[in-house]
Amino acid sequence: MLRLFRPIFFVCGVLALIMTGLLLAPMIYGYLVGDPEYLAFLKSAIISLLFGALLIFWGRERRFRLTSRQLYLLTSMSWLQLSFVGALPLMLTGHPLTLSEAVFEAVSGITTTGSTVISGINTLPPSILLWRSLLQWVGGLGVIGMAVTILPFLRVGGMRLFQTESSDWSEKSLPRFHEMAHRLLFIYLMITLACGLCYWVAGMTPFDAVNHAMTTVSTGGYATDDASMGRFNDTILWIAVVFMMIGGMPFMLYIRFLSQRNWSVFADQQAKGFIAIVAFLIAILTLEQVVLDGEPLMRTLTQAAFNIVSIITTTGYASADYTLWGEFSIGLFFIATFIGGCSGSTSGGMKVFRFQLSYQFLADQMHKLVHPRSITSIRYNGKPIPDDIVASAVAFSFLFFIVLAATTLILTALGVEFITAFTGAITALTNVGPGLGDTIGPAGNFHTLPDTAKWLLSLAMILGRLELLTVMVLLSPVFWRG
Amino acid sequence: MLRLFRPIFFVCGVLALIMTGLLLAPMIYGYLVGDPEYLAFLKSAIISLLFGALLIFWGRERRFRLTSRQLYLLTSMSWLQLSFVGALPLMLTGHPLTLSEAVFEAVSGITTTGSTVISGINTLPPSILLWRSLLQWVGGLGVIGMAVTILPFLRVGGMRLFQTESSDWSEKSLPRFHEMAHRLLFIYLMITLACGLCYWVAGMTPFDAVNHAMTTVSTGGYATDDASMGRFNDTILWIAVVFMMIGGMPFMLYIRFLSQRNWSVFADQQAKGFIAIVAFLIAILTLEQVVLDGEPLMRTLTQAAFNIVSIITTTGYASADYTLWGEFSIGLFFIATFIGGCSGSTSGGMKVFRFQLSYQFLADQMHKLVHPRSITSIRYNGKPIPDDIVASAVAFSFLFFIVLAATTLILTALGVEFITAFTGAITALTNVGPGLGDTIGPAGNFHTLPDTAKWLLSLAMILGRLELLTVMVLLSPVFWRG
Ligand SMILES: [K+]
Ligand SMILES: [K+]
Repeated sequence: MLRLFRPIFFVCGVLALIMTGLLLAPMIYGYLVGDPEYLAFLKSAIISLLFGALLIFWGRERRFRLTSRQLYLLTSMSWLQLSFVGALPLMLTGHPLTLSEAVFEAVSGITTTGSTVISGINTLPPSILLWRSLLQWVGGLGVIGMAVTILPFLRVGGMRLFQTESSDWSEKSLPRFHEMAHRLLFIYLMITLACGLCYWVAGMTPFDAVNHAMTTVSTGGYATDDASMGRFNDTILWIAVVFMMIGGMPFMLYIRFLSQRNWSVFADQQAKGFIAIVAFLIAILTLEQVVLDGEPLMRTLTQAAFNIVSIITTTGYASADYTLWGEFSIGLFFIATFIGGCSGSTSGGMKVFRFQLSYQFLADQMHKLVHPRSITSIRYNGKPIPDDIVASAVAFSFLFFIVLAATTLILTALGVEFITAFTGAITALTNVGPGLGDTIGPAGNFHTLPDTAKWLLSLAMILGRLELLTVMVLLSPVFWRG
Repeated sequence: MLRLFRPIFFVCGVLALIMTGLLLAPMIYGYLVGDPEYLAFLKSAIISLLFGALLIFWGRERRFRLTSRQLYLLTSMSWLQLSFVGALPLMLTGHPLTLSEAVFEAVSGITTTGSTVISGINTLPPSILLWRSLLQWVGGLGVIGMAVTILPFLRVGGMRLFQTESSDWSEKSLPRFHEMAHRLLFIYLMITLACGLCYWVAGMTPFDAVNHAMTTVSTGGYATDDASMGRFNDTILWIAVVFMMIGGMPFMLYIRFLSQRNWSVFADQQAKGFIAIVAFLIAILTLEQVVLDGEPLMRTLTQAAFNIVSIITTTGYASADYTLWGEFSIGLFFIATFIGGCSGSTSGGMKVFRFQLSYQFLADQMHKLVHPRSITSIRYNGKPIPDDIVASAVAFSFLFFIVLAATTLILTALGVEFITAFTGAITALTNVGPGLGDTIGPAGNFHTLPDTAKWLLSLAMILGRLELLTVMVLLSPVFWRG
């Protein structure tokens, strides 16, 4: 058993050291602006440093190889560990959160969900605000890193679709992964920087610009004010639209563009499908509001674009309470919640490629209804896709709805009102952030839910972030017998 | 084109003659009890007779063979035609319904959904009440007949699972189908008779017993009073539980039992799974109510059993407004709505066998995550099932949720309030009957919805009844190019 966990301890130790480094940012900033909470970050950094050193000491090994069982364990455990280290400073501040609240807030950060248990965000100390944004930023980086390196090798939800010929998971491919990781970090930094600069030029304070840049690119959605993005001008909203879309696209395309310098890398089926869906949803919502309700065109377009992109990229910023825009917009936003962005992006949700594969599977079935003897195969990005990958992408929606049903049911058993339970489970599993209803709607927060509900929703956010099966396999006896 | 439709006209003509015969029942009964509405049925019977004769004249042919394209056309067109003939007397009475209302009511009857646009059911003339029950009864018979004869030959939603070796669709198998149809009719009549007798002995009036027997066995849910089953004693509720369960089981088992006289035919994977799910849901709901809320055991068990069985068999009777039983029961009933009964029964919903196949598919995937090179196959009732049948059963849930999303969205665009739109779409597609919320909840009705919403929901009920793809294929260009 120790042999199984040793390399996992090692990686978790390294992650703890990275978190230690990140904790220094709010500490230093807090110290410089005279925010007394900098001490909470100092303490957390020390704990995290010791914890990381201990794990590395336990886990050190001469050769470093990972079996696929260890990859599953590693994925789940590293997110758990990031969540708990992320929760530390929130429990050590002058106005400490309880354990369940702090873990919920940290999980919501690191999974880039953006649901919050804190009201009065604008009265929070700047160091805490910065920490929440940093958690989302590093969570976004982590999920892309995981999607381009580990997930294509695991048989979960059709992710093997993204296993390129040039990639395999063995010791000899480590240098290539190193290079890819460097490029990814560079691109992610550059995009964040560009986003922050645009925000600043468009009128945000430098502090707001930094925070919102981090939570935009990571499609996280934490804001620095209870009004979310509602207090900013239209230019800022359009900047957010652009960078949320960038965050919702497959980052592999940016990595390829960096090495090939060829715009043709963006001719990707998933990216094109994503843009088409977003454009379609914005168009019908704007049309409905302008034609039927007589709203002014430009203002409506801005609000529609911002809120649709915010929901479909699973960012979860709000610029207005769209539940007041009429029944059609509630229906539309409800459906957009499930779709999500592209695989290999910072977005959550069920992901565009699964809808594309499922649609193609059904179209193929439809064809075979009429021509039973025809032999066809489903192609993605021009390449034929093995049946089992298609089937596992299609089966993801079934699994998603089963997990959603179970989460909803347990929440109602804990006494949570049905609509809050149902939309809370959806928003956690899709990593969007806000739900529907008075309690957890765009204008509410998760503070009043019972503690057990917060723990359950924390688990749901991690399940959603890790494509469900990656975590669920750890609960099956066959995994541990294996 | 005429050649394509000719045999379909012929079958629809025969169905119109059968409907003519059925129309005579409320006519004669109405005449005997002095109900002036008997004239509406006389007029409808004459129209239906002429219509049927015309169709048979158009469609007559020396040889009778059906291609698979014709089977698809036949399925959809026969249900459309039954709906329109069913709507006739509702528009010819002294207090006529409008076209959209009458069609909605007839579709809701013939698809055994049981949603109604009529309030004040108890003030309806007896002939109309009898007609609503008859529509459900014949709709239930029709859906079983279709499931055991036509659907296993169509490639929709994994229904080919039920294609037995001994069955194929060619002229030489017609005598066998004839025999099966006779047996089915006999069994269906016997079960209805037994149900009616039990109801009568337990205290219903003969008229109520006949009507409720027809809408229980067909899991239709039309009642003769606005209070649905709420006004009857506990014995009657338990009788209803038993016969709704009988209606939700695969009728093929009864047909086999009739010929083999061997109880082992009931050792069917779908039947056992269905009973297990129902027992589990009743147990947790009763436990929750008794332990947490301190309700009395027997009364709670009766109410839980009746309402759970009513929803999961997609009957839709209510004995109490279960939306007042707390959040957990709302969540539980919401989830039960989707499950539905067994394939080859009168129940709607997604069907138990699809959940079983999807679960087995996921368990198999889970196993392969750990043992990638293992070769396994999914078995059902002991027999290995081809991958494409499993995949199409799994894909059904994706299709279901897409159709649900589209229906909900169009309803909201028509101005229907979101929860009404969402649960109305669910209840129509699953053929359950009542939705959630003030408008269409267990205590409400569909009268106040806009006309276009009624048409859309009528279409949704037919889509749900015919397993979606059977109808949707008619909308694809490839079908007509075929
Ligand atoms: K989010
Ligand atoms: K029903």
